[in-house]
Parts: sequence; structure tokens; C-alpha cells
Amino acid sequence: MNGSIIRFILGSVLKIEGLLLFLPAFISGIYLEHEGLYYVGVAAVCLCLGFLMTRKPPKDQVFYLKEGCITTALSWILLSFFGCLPFYLSGEIPSFTDALFETISGFTTTGASILSDVESLSHCALFWRSFTHWIGGMGVLVFLLAVIPLSGGSHINLMRAESPGPSVGKLVPKIRYTARILYLIYFAMTLLEIILLLIGKMPLFDALTTSFGTAGTGGFGIKNDSLVGYSTYLQWVVTIFMILFGVNFNAYYLALFGSPKKALCMEEVRVYFTIILASTGIIFLNILNSCTGIFDALTHAAFQVGSIITTTGFSSTDFDLWPQASKTILVLLMFIGACAGSTGGGIKVSRFILLIKTIIKELNSYIHPKIIKKIKMDDKSVEHEVLRSTNVYFITFMIIFSVSIFIVSFDNKDFGTNFTAVAATINNIGPGLELVGPTQNFGHFSILSKYILMFDMLAGRLELFPLLILFHPAAWKDLFTLRFSHKNRK
Amino acid sequence: MNGSIIRFILGSVLKIEGLLLFLPAFISGIYLEHEGLYYVGVAAVCLCLGFLMTRKPPKDQVFYLKEGCITTALSWILLSFFGCLPFYLSGEIPSFTDALFETISGFTTTGASILSDVESLSHCALFWRSFTHWIGGMGVLVFLLAVIPLSGGSHINLMRAESPGPSVGKLVPKIRYTARILYLIYFAMTLLEIILLLIGKMPLFDALTTSFGTAGTGGFGIKNDSLVGYSTYLQWVVTIFMILFGVNFNAYYLALFGSPKKALCMEEVRVYFTIILASTGIIFLNILNSCTGIFDALTHAAFQVGSIITTTGFSSTDFDLWPQASKTILVLLMFIGACAGSTGGGIKVSRFILLIKTIIKELNSYIHPKIIKKIKMDDKSVEHEVLRSTNVYFITFMIIFSVSIFIVSFDNKDFGTNFTAVAATINNIGPGLELVGPTQNFGHFSILSKYILMFDMLAGRLELFPLLILFHPAAWKDLFTLRFSHKNRK
Repeated sequence: MNGSIIRFILGSVLKIEGLLLFLPAFISGIYLEHEGLYYVGVAAVCLCLGFLMTRKPPKDQVFYLKEGCITTALSWILLSFFGCLPFYLSGEIPSFTDALFETISGFTTTGASILSDVESLSHCALFWRSFTHWIGGMGVLVFLLAVIPLSGGSHINLMRAESPGPSVGKLVPKIRYTARILYLIYFAMTLLEIILLLIGKMPLFDALTTSFGTAGTGGFGIKNDSLVGYSTYLQWVVTIFMILFGVNFNAYYLALFGSPKKALCMEEVRVYFTIILASTGIIFLNILNSCTGIFDALTHAAFQVGSIITTTGFSSTDFDLWPQASKTILVLLMFIGACAGSTGGGIKVSRFILLIKTIIKELNSYIHPKIIKKIKMDDKSVEHEVLRSTNVYFITFMIIFSVSIFIVSFDNKDFGTNFTAVAATINNIGPGLELVGPTQNFGHFSILSKYILMFDMLAGRLELFPLLILFHPAAWKDLFTLRFSHKNRK
Repeated sequence: MNGSIIRFILGSVLKIEGLLLFLPAFISGIYLEHEGLYYVGVAAVCLCLGFLMTRKPPKDQVFYLKEGCITTALSWILLSFFGCLPFYLSGEIPSFTDALFETISGFTTTGASILSDVESLSHCALFWRSFTHWIGGMGVLVFLLAVIPLSGGSHINLMRAESPGPSVGKLVPKIRYTARILYLIYFAMTLLEIILLLIGKMPLFDALTTSFGTAGTGGFGIKNDSLVGYSTYLQWVVTIFMILFGVNFNAYYLALFGSPKKALCMEEVRVYFTIILASTGIIFLNILNSCTGIFDALTHAAFQVGSIITTTGFSSTDFDLWPQASKTILVLLMFIGACAGSTGGGIKVSRFILLIKTIIKELNSYIHPKIIKKIKMDDKSVEHEVLRSTNVYFITFMIIFSVSIFIVSFDNKDFGTNFTAVAATINNIGPGLELVGPTQNFGHFSILSKYILMFDMLAGRLELFPLLILFHPAAWKDLFTLRFSHKNRK
């Protein structure tokens, strides 16, 4: 285990967080809010700690999957811990558990809140809340890879541990440039959304925070009723951008630097849009009676489908009041999630394509036991390893899901609440149904349940194994053995 | 495709059903009920059809997995179709869909009823309802294999398609004797339960039907309140026998003819009992406050855990009124199910053991990528093929489960009802929660939903693929091509 590189990267993450915390502090300056001081204070602590930890360069930069996973998990925990301190210290969220919940929900782009009245928060708190979505969406380690020169190591393992999807590839041979291209696309699209929202006469502050929430597919709003109060034009802009941020970023890269046709032919992207169209169509017909008109029904159907499949979690209406069929579609979309390689969560469209193809292959093997056909995606054979890990991912997901529901059930809330609370957190969506519906919040859960849901949010964002590995005794044994052997050598 | 053997076996199944239908007719004779005539009538039709179909012996008896699956699926559909006719024709269940639902629920040992008042049924209908559980529990094709000499073929494929669990082995080299041994154990245990119930002063008719329901892990009761009205002694007898019928029958074979120690050391059996003890313990503590005493709480906790994990579905109390944690445990037990090679349903304990071991192996591979350890069960390496098919089974199960919930949701019932209705049918349990709780029934579902739930019951009992294969176009193309090529040759 290469402990020095882990220390070095964690330090760098802290330095980045320290710098980013100056942004809400700056906002507090504009609005003359005293809460900004807490952000400056925490930023200073992060920077000091960061510099201490990165003072000595790592002995060697070799990096295996294990280190990648552990570093990623620890980075996200560290990030959330320091990120929640301004909320807690300023007293805006008086309970530490709640502040941590809110911050993890932000970084993991979940958007599940424990606050019943977000409008009472200071501007800097609202900004920081939404900005954590933007940081978490593309990933802080991907950012790190884009800005810090790390040479010689297999740093794809860092990216692999942080990026969503069954197989993470490099867009270009150099990982550093891949990370930069991703962040460039991400930045440009966010900017475009801000501009379009401003054109629709949304105030600048609202446009910034809403765009951060959309880009990271997060879903924290700055209004108590999420996006209900905005104009239809603004709702459609957000709908379209939510859906665009749920597309595999490889498609954008292909469209920009390769061939746009190839991008459109990507199987995952086509299936993703087909699911969106089909779900919107069914929900549209299902809610038509309860809406004020055809266009109204279409707006809400498209908004909610886009919001849930991309795991953003904004709401344009209280969909908990919809007929059961529409609600069930939304619950199923929670699990499907967005495309791999996007900022969205969930199990991912590409994994579902592979799972369905696996079932068809199995059926075929009953009919023609001697003909073995390889599963293909985008006309290429899918490697056995990818299939296997997809299956294992799905199984692990379901087991964590079940165990979480079991523990949360001790709060004695109804099954629909427990089920959708866990579904909304492990898939990084935000609102569920019933007591965690779009007009409700997560504040009423017990402390134990809140920690379980925090675990689920992190597990969902980091795609399970990087987080689970922290619970493997061998992961720690390695780290300690290393420590001791170092000391002994001295 | 060997069409003649499929015809021959389906004919034999009909003959068996024809003979079995005389049993309820005999009961009607005792109670002087005119409904018995319908049973005699349907029996006559079954026998005639059966004789017509088995007149010509099959050209050859070779039998592949495909034929095994198709034959099994068709047998069960045929069995249910003719089995429901007496209910429908006698007018005791006036709707054909409802009669078919009740019969499929019987044969698949689900025990989900569309009847709100079972006590108004005639004795022969009650007997037949419970007896379908007994037939379905061990399987009609296993019975066929035990009594009809089929030589030369690989008839293990028939048994494989009908028997539950990831890997079906022969107990003894000859499949015929394996089937006989299984039925012997089954018969002896049922008899023992009847005797013990009679000792507890249960009336003979009640003892017979209750034992059929327990043995097949079915759950149809002859009282509207299931087993609530019986004495604690009787409830404990049923509890113990439910749990015993959920044990892998290989364990009984080992205990009788091999070494009892080996039987107790079977990993699946040990895990099965551990789950039962743990669940009973937690529920016991959880419901203690709402019960009249410690023994009362223990009785109900053990009864319900035994009833749900073995997928029987009897109830000793209205567990829908229990605290959410207890209810959630029961919902999770629904999915775990009984041991493979038992008469119980669900995903099966052994599959869960394999799934958990797969996850642990995956975690280890992150820590030590170069060390590949094989997954072991009962100290033997598990074949890759078994692991693969277990994974695929779990995935297929979840997909069918999700699609079913989606379709059923159009009835606009609450999520808890839909979720547990599908869970209770696909896992062959019977009652769920909320509107399908132990004091409710399935009569209020739409016709479409009822057919979806019937599909789920059959899919669960036949372990998905034998039923799914009927929807594969190639399965039918084969059959028709065969037909035409026969004709052309003439």
C-alpha cells in the first residue's frame, strides 16, 4: 500500500476545498452576511492542513486500484466533513449530523435535505449548498487530475474509482487531458444554462445556484417549493439541461472532436432518450386529467422524468399527488438512472442494457445450448470482466439497498417512505414519495437512519466498492503494517 | 425439438390430474355436496384427453433442457386450466379469471386468494384447493417420473426444470428412484403432521387440509382468519412443520440414508436456521409490547417467520398491524425464501449464500487483485456455471419484479400494496401487506393485474426461465417447423 501518495492526494483535496470555500465567503461579502467569516475560517484550516499534508512529495506515485478506491472514499469523507463545518459553526444547521447529511447530500449530488425552510438560510449557505453539487458532479479527483501534474502512476485508477459507469476509458491517451476536456465541457454547458436562465429573467443568484444544481444533477433548490414558482420557459430550460447533463460525456467529446453521427449512434444514448420519451408519454397520458391543459401536463411530465432519471431531484409540481402508475414509473427511473460517464447517479442505463442482454443471452442458451454468442454493445464485444462486474454491481446494490431499508424501518415509518428514502439517497436523487416526497424533507429520521442514508448517498455516488472497501479489514491492515514497517526501518 | 415426447408427457399429466380429481369428488360424497359432480365431469374429460394424447408412445424419448422447460411450463398451465374448471363450472367462483387465479395460486403453492369468504365454499372445493398445494409442492412432473417408466432419455432435465434451486442433483443414480424417495419423505412428513394435529384435537378435515397447505408450503386456509382460531399447540405444530418443509430434502435423505451429522453440516441448512432464529428474535423483541405475554409474542414471531421464509403464508395474527421493522423483516424474508430442493419458494437461501460470497470475493479482488480464490460451498468449489446462472437468475427476477409492479400500479393502489402483492406472488407466499395483508385478499385487482400476478406465481414456482422460454419466438418456431417437416415427409 502506497500510503504517502494517499496522504499527498488527500492534502491536495483539502487545498482545493480551502480555495473553493472562498467563493461563498465572497458571496457573503456582496450580501453583507456575517456567516461568511465561518467559511473563511474553515478555508484557512483546510489550506493549512492541506499544505502540511503535501509538504513532502510522495515517495513514489505508483497507484493501484486499491489505493484509488481508498483515496477516493477518504477524499469524499474529508471533503464532506470540512464542507459541513460552516453550516454547523454558523448555527444555520444547529445539529452536526444534519449539517453533515446536508453536505454529503450536496457533494454526492443527491439533493436530499433535512431543512424544512431553505429560504431562511443566508445567501452564502445557499450558494455553498448548490456549489457542492457542481464540485461533486464531475468529481473533485477528476478536477485534481486536471490541474495537478501527477506523473508515472496509473492514475486512471483514481478516475475509475470516482467516475460512474461500468467501464471508464480515457478520451485521449493522457489522463490529464481527458480530465481537462471533461471539465471544459462541464463548465461550458453550465455557463450556457446560466445565460439561458438569465434570458428568461431569472435573477443572477437563482440562475447560478439552479445551474449548479442542474449541472451536477444535484437538486438542491433555493426555494422551499423547488422550481414550482418559476415560469414555464425556465422550467423547460432546466428540463433540457438536466437531460443533457445525464448524457454520457463521451458523446459530447465525440460530437465535438470526432463525428456527431457516431455520438448519436451510441447505444446507451439512444436507449436513454427512448426511456425518457416513453416515460414522459405514459406519465403525460396518466396525469392529463389532473392538469390544467395539454401543455401543462407535458411540461410537468417531461420535467419530472428528466429530473428523476438524471437523478437531479428538482420538482416542478408535487408528484407525490400523481396517480400510482406515474409515481411507480418515477420510482423505476430512480433505479435506472442516467448514462454512465455523466454527472447523474442511479444504476446507469448502460448497466441495464448489459443486464437485459445477459437475460436474452441466457434465454437463447436454453434454446440453442451449443451456440455461444458474445454480448455486443456499440457493435463491439463486451469483455467478460465488464459483464461480470456489472452483475456483481447489481447484486451488491440490491443487498445494500435491502439492508438499508431494514435498518431505517426501525423508525417505524411506512414502507413507501422507507423504500423511496433509501432509493432516493442510494441513487443520489433527493426527494422520494410519501414522507420524503417533494414537499417534505429528511429531517424527521432518527440519527441512526440519517447515517445509514449518508452511507447510501456516498455508496451510490462512488459506485459501492470504493466505499465498501473501507470496511474490509485487510485495507486497514495494509495501511498499518506499512506504518509499522516504516517505523521499524528507521 | 422432440414434439412427440412433449405430447406424451402432457397427456400423462392430464391422466394424473383426472385421477386426482376423484379425491374431492369422494369428499363431496361424504358431505353429500352436489358440487362433486363437476369434479367427476372434469376428471372424465381429463382422462379421455389424456388417453388420446398418450395412445401413441413417443417416437424417441430423448429430452433436452429446452423440451424439459417447455413441457414443464405447458404442464403447469394445463394443470391449472383443468384444475380451475370445477370451481368455475360449479359457480363457487363465478369468474373464470378468479377461478384460474385461485388454482394457479394453489398449484404454485402461493396461497394468494381472491375469495373474501372461504368458509362459504363446499368441502370438496376447500379440499381441492388445499390438495393443489400438496401436488404443486413436490411437483407433478417429479411424481410422473416416480411412477411412469421413461427410459433412455435425459429426464433429469424435466426434474431440473421443475425443482427449485440453483443446482439439482440426483440423490441416487436412477432418476426414478430419486423421485420416489422424495415423494416418500414428503408423504411420511405430511402423515406425521396430520397425526400430530389430530392429537391436538383438530378435526380430521381441518388436519388434512392444513397439512396439505403446510407440506406444499402453500398457505390456503379453510377459515377466513387462517390459523388465528386454533390453539397454541396446533400453531406450534404448524410452525415446526412449515420450517421442516422448507429444509432442503437432500438433508433428510442424508439424515436417513447417509450420516445425520453431514445433514446438519449442510451450509444452506445452517444459514436457513440462523436466519429463522435471528428474525424470530428481532421480531419477538419488536412486538413484545403489543402482545399479551412473552410466550404469546414468541408464538406469533416464530409462526410468522416460519410462514413467510418458507413462503407458506399462513397467519396466526394480523401481522400488517405490527411495527414497521417487523413488517420489513417479513418482506425481506419473502425474497430470501426457503432452501433449494424444498417445497418452498422465494429466491432460495443457497442462492443468497452464493450472492453474498460473490460480493465478498469481489471486495477481496480489490484488495488482492492477483489472488483468485474459488467460491466454496460445503467445502466444495462451486462451478462457474452455477455462479453465473445464480447471478442471471437474480437479475431476471428483479427485472420481472419491477415490470410487474409497473403494470399492477395502473390499478392505482398504494405502493406498499403493489410491492408486496408482487413480492407475495412471485415468491409464492400468499399474503402481503396493506390491501393484500393477511386479513385481505387479491379479489380487488383488475383482470390485467390478476393475469400479471398469475404469471408471477408461475414464474416464481418454475424459477423463471422455463416459463420465459414460452415467450421466445424460437421455441415455437422449432415446434412448428417440426410439424411441417413431418407433414412434408408424408
